[in-house]
Amino acid sequence: MSNSENRSWRQILHDIIYEADTPAGKVFDIVLLVLILASIALVMLESVKSFDEKYHEFFEVGEWVITIFFTFEYFARIITVKKPSKYIFSFYGLIDFFSTIPQYLAFFVIGSNALLTVRALRLLRIFRILKVTRYVGESNKLSKALKDSRAKISIFLFAVLILCIIAGTLMYMIEGEESGFTSIPVSVYWCIVTLTTVGFGDIAPVTPLGQFIAAIIMIMGYGIIAVPTGIVSAEYAKDYKNKNDIVTIDGEDYVHMNTQSCQNCGTRKHRDDAQHCHQCGYSLFDE
Amino acid sequence: MSNSENRSWRQILHDIIYEADTPAGKVFDIVLLVLILASIALVMLESVKSFDEKYHEFFEVGEWVITIFFTFEYFARIITVKKPSKYIFSFYGLIDFFSTIPQYLAFFVIGSNALLTVRALRLLRIFRILKVTRYVGESNKLSKALKDSRAKISIFLFAVLILCIIAGTLMYMIEGEESGFTSIPVSVYWCIVTLTTVGFGDIAPVTPLGQFIAAIIMIMGYGIIAVPTGIVSAEYAKDYKNKNDIVTIDGEDYVHMNTQSCQNCGTRKHRDDAQHCHQCGYSLFDE
Amino acid sequence: MSNSENRSWRQILHDIIYEADTPAGKVFDIVLLVLILASIALVMLESVKSFDEKYHEFFEVGEWVITIFFTFEYFARIITVKKPSKYIFSFYGLIDFFSTIPQYLAFFVIGSNALLTVRALRLLRIFRILKVTRYVGESNKLSKALKDSRAKISIFLFAVLILCIIAGTLMYMIEGEESGFTSIPVSVYWCIVTLTTVGFGDIAPVTPLGQFIAAIIMIMGYGIIAVPTGIVSAEYAKDYKNKNDIVTIDGEDYVHMNTQSCQNCGTRKHRDDAQHCHQCGYSLFDE
Amino acid sequence: MSNSENRSWRQILHDIIYEADTPAGKVFDIVLLVLILASIALVMLESVKSFDEKYHEFFEVGEWVITIFFTFEYFARIITVKKPSKYIFSFYGLIDFFSTIPQYLAFFVIGSNALLTVRALRLLRIFRILKVTRYVGESNKLSKALKDSRAKISIFLFAVLILCIIAGTLMYMIEGEESGFTSIPVSVYWCIVTLTTVGFGDIAPVTPLGQFIAAIIMIMGYGIIAVPTGIVSAEYAKDYKNKNDIVTIDGEDYVHMNTQSCQNCGTRKHRDDAQHCHQCGYSLFDE
Repeated sequence: MSNSENRSWRQILHDIIYEADTPAGKVFDIVLLVLILASIALVMLESVKSFDEKYHEFFEVGEWVITIFFTFEYFARIITVKKPSKYIFSFYGLIDFFSTIPQYLAFFVIGSNALLTVRALRLLRIFRILKVTRYVGESNKLSKALKDSRAKISIFLFAVLILCIIAGTLMYMIEGEESGFTSIPVSVYWCIVTLTTVGFGDIAPVTPLGQFIAAIIMIMGYGIIAVPTGIVSAEYAKDYKNKNDIVTIDGEDYVHMNTQSCQNCGTRKHRDDAQHCHQCGYSLFDE
Repeated sequence: MSNSENRSWRQILHDIIYEADTPAGKVFDIVLLVLILASIALVMLESVKSFDEKYHEFFEVGEWVITIFFTFEYFARIITVKKPSKYIFSFYGLIDFFSTIPQYLAFFVIGSNALLTVRALRLLRIFRILKVTRYVGESNKLSKALKDSRAKISIFLFAVLILCIIAGTLMYMIEGEESGFTSIPVSVYWCIVTLTTVGFGDIAPVTPLGQFIAAIIMIMGYGIIAVPTGIVSAEYAKDYKNKNDIVTIDGEDYVHMNTQSCQNCGTRKHRDDAQHCHQCGYSLFDE
Repeated sequence: MSNSENRSWRQILHDIIYEADTPAGKVFDIVLLVLILASIALVMLESVKSFDEKYHEFFEVGEWVITIFFTFEYFARIITVKKPSKYIFSFYGLIDFFSTIPQYLAFFVIGSNALLTVRALRLLRIFRILKVTRYVGESNKLSKALKDSRAKISIFLFAVLILCIIAGTLMYMIEGEESGFTSIPVSVYWCIVTLTTVGFGDIAPVTPLGQFIAAIIMIMGYGIIAVPTGIVSAEYAKDYKNKNDIVTIDGEDYVHMNTQSCQNCGTRKHRDDAQHCHQCGYSLFDE
Repeated sequence: MSNSENRSWRQILHDIIYEADTPAGKVFDIVLLVLILASIALVMLESVKSFDEKYHEFFEVGEWVITIFFTFEYFARIITVKKPSKYIFSFYGLIDFFSTIPQYLAFFVIGSNALLTVRALRLLRIFRILKVTRYVGESNKLSKALKDSRAKISIFLFAVLILCIIAGTLMYMIEGEESGFTSIPVSVYWCIVTLTTVGFGDIAPVTPLGQFIAAIIMIMGYGIIAVPTGIVSAEYAKDYKNKNDIVTIDGEDYVHMNTQSCQNCGTRKHRDDAQHCHQCGYSLFDE
């Protein structure tokens, strides 16, 4: 086998795996996606006792088929990539490794029952869907909006947490252990359950004072749910206000200003399309 | 009966059924709406045991009256429409058929108890209300806003689902079967119940670590509920800003401007349909 | 007693009751508000058995004091108003009557236990708070925003209801009576509980298919909660764009401009109440 | 020890405690933050019985270390500040005092069991985090948005409360004591639990009419959750529209434009403070 032939063989494999635009690449991507989904479905169904008893062997075979495919894919990626070490220690490289290895571990190491936790690692493949997913534009926008409002959301969550600790302690002192508020952490947990309007009902206040405080917490939770919504809405709305264009806010026009300063009078903040200084009339492009 | 007489008779029937603007058409629509609502009420009340025992015969008579009316209406629609096959296989044609047939099936086929599922098909008539409903302008706006944000909402729901699968698996491993987390699908179901802030409480974490993770899930759910709200709000707001068209906000007209600059005077921000510069009158399409 | 003296006495009473701007009127309003609140508190506390047993006589005395005050106030309003019949049959007149009469009924008619429902009518006084309440500007704005989005919200609630009826019927057929879904109306009730993310947990699906459908309902509820929010947000945002009036945003005044063009210089965008062109001073109403 | 030496020693201490910009001040702030968090964690963990039994002595030692540090800090603040009395009776001064004293009280006064409530005062230190917290800009914005919409939110909460009292009384009369609606206050509590979509499920309607009313309450709660969201969103959006001032969106500066048109070239949309046309340089105030 000549060196050039070898290279072209690798090149084809590389195109199939990494180039989603070619027909073969598309087929590979779809097969990969189907297998990841099948893998996740298998992990989930295996955990259902009645299913596992009936179809245990079918599940076992399915797992091996998927695992062998992912093993081949893993080595194919290492061979075809330019810097194997970079892939191996990348986020997706580690996910590929740790989601494939449990099946071998469970086979070679006796006592697979104890490996439940390790086997669940196969679910890590779910993150790979994010890579194959379509709608990338939309998801980027979404994650950008969340990233931009990160500081605001974290200060909000921080305030919620402080509120929950204070209210939780208060409820612990008022309700006590008989009502299920067995400790401050449990009370804080209850408070989070209540403030977020989840309301399991496994713990609920029984004293009139406790119910009164609970009512206040609920109404607060009802009110402050508006805060993250307002934040994200504002963040989304910002997307529509692109630099250089006239921005219409409530019927009033705004325009972007550059940071150029007039050479005559030093005034700054001119319109991007300004020809003359709006203060002294001196040409902005004079030399 | 002459052919022309026959046609005119059909024409009148067609007008009654399809033309909501004529007085007879209006009466027909209202009768139809009332019968659909009565039909839905009957199906619902029949399912209440105590009611069914008392008023079984009344319900039966009511069902037959409604069914016979809908049967006549079905055939009338087929006769009066130009292409009967097109109506029969249309969405509303199929609903008309499948919502009328169960009563006959239950009568002719012995063992109507087993036909519960089939009888419930009568509830399909509910979709016909959508056709008769007023406020059409508003509902079109609503469905348009939802349709436009479909891509965004599906990527959002997809992210929520992945989150629920991961968190559900984690909770399954932490809490185990004693707490009601009997399998991964059940844990994922619990996770959806929690993240959406529904919180039935039929399953609830009991271990401190489980409650800690649950608290994180709840706060995340509380935070990300803001995302679809932000999306729909932005989508609604967009309705006011349609490029190229005149946008009417509170009865005032606005028009979108492009970023083209005039080759004569350099003025920018012309209307998209402008032929001449609005500053100097120079043709914008001159070469 | 002369007629003029009588009139002035009535005039004074009228001013006290109806004029909130005078010192006596202010005191009257505050006393009224305090008594209404005390009345509501009494009705609520009387319903608590342990309180009623202890303080029954105190409650009784309090009720009589309040009732006698409201009786005097009722007759005072009838005497001082110009058209007594108009007040008596107005919304607040009827509330005043029906919230005062139960105490007398309970006294004169033996068997006050059966009058529980009638006694609760005293709670109607709560509506009178709305009349005395401050922040009137804000509450008008709020009710206006709700009124303007009434059509949108009713079409939305209508869609939610249809969804609940369909999903409720589906759940009734899937889960059946063993899981608590005893009839279609109960299933629809459960569906509303779930879709609105309340989630009592008194009824909860137990079959895998039921839990799957429930998960879909919850995620839908989570998604469509965004719709009324978007509607109200848009409605609120509109408030800042009121034609013809001066709009104050952050302490700055804005005014709406029309599209009229000056017949002399052609300048457009005049204030709606402009008499002369703001550029050349030419009369806008010249012919 | 000379007076000047004494002052400089105090000056250094003052800088460490009050000046966050110096290296020593930063270290002090971080140590303080860590100790406050440790203190809160200790109070919470002590309330967990199983932990308290195991690590009681460790907790005791930890508490004393923290208490002694806070005692020193308290006196250091008194010494270094110009007007000690102002600090002592300030919000943070009182928090410092009441969060430090319980440990001494529990030591000197026998019967610390009865001092549970007093010991929980140590949790007051949580408020001090607010002082040390970073992201100050963001949290100021957040609290400003909440403060500005205070009037709106209070009228909204007031309306919610009236609604809950009316609906609660109705439910009390419909459901009665068998269903858990033991008194009007409890019914109002249940109504708040339901309207805020928390839904514990400890109390739930069982009669068809009660479930019908409950469904209406839930749908109303689902609808009116939109109101505070709309309010806060609008309040947030206002931040971007300060007329006459430079508006910063995404780090880019925008300025408001008026609708004045240049008398020389007719260009419109000048800055409010413009003296000359930005297109042709002609004076905007020429006559």
